[in-house]
Amino acid sequence: MTQPETVKPEAGTSQPDETLAAYRQSIDNIDAAVIFMLAERFKITQQVGQYKAQAQLPAADPQREQEQVARLRRLSQLAQLDPEFSEKFLRFVITEVIQHHEQIRDDEQIRPDEQGAS
Amino acid sequence: MTQPETVKPEAGTSQPDETLAAYRQSIDNIDAAVIFMLAERFKITQQVGQYKAQAQLPAADPQREQEQVARLRRLSQLAQLDPEFSEKFLRFVITEVIQHHEQIRDDEQIRPDEQGAS
Repeated sequence: MTQPETVKPEAGTSQPDETLAAYRQSIDNIDAAVIFMLAERFKITQQVGQYKAQAQLPAADPQREQEQVARLRRLSQLAQLDPEFSEKFLRFVITEVIQHHEQIRDDEQIRPDEQGAS
Repeated sequence: MTQPETVKPEAGTSQPDETLAAYRQSIDNIDAAVIFMLAERFKITQQVGQYKAQAQLPAADPQREQEQVARLRRLSQLAQLDPEFSEKFLRFVITEVIQHHEQIRDDEQIRPDEQGAS
């Protein structure tokens, strides 16, 4: 008899669960990768926020947002990820970014800079 | 006179904005990477969901969740990302995963499997 790769759990057992631990190790690795990617993303959107504040561009850009949603939904299908989830994820991140942009704009308005913006 | 790398925008101009386009290209690359990572994450949590349903383990695990939050907050500081954001992000993903787990458990309950679970 061969041992299956993933041991089928018995209901109600509470022994150290190696199968679950292995899954969680992979999840933790992926989460670390995603966090470092998002840190890089926020560095860029921070620059975008400063640029938009200087150019007096609005923090939100609905047309750009629509294009991003459409693109991520297409990519999700390639990745076999639920497109609804990828849209929710993008809107979650964008909401956070817009709050940062508005904060930057408000800071610029309080503190007149070298272009004399007030 | 030297041209600065990032052209300072004039307020109110609507010319094609190369600076903004360059930032957005990088954001789009990062988003694609994150979407493919999250697709992989959901493949694993899908397996976890099936495993938990078989083992009759609850979909949510508050202690594991606390450990994940604490770990991601530490990683965020290394990555110079707002720890509040990384916690919100993790809770957003976990909420989605738990919904999937509950769906899997409910499906298993409706359709008795080879272990006779009902």
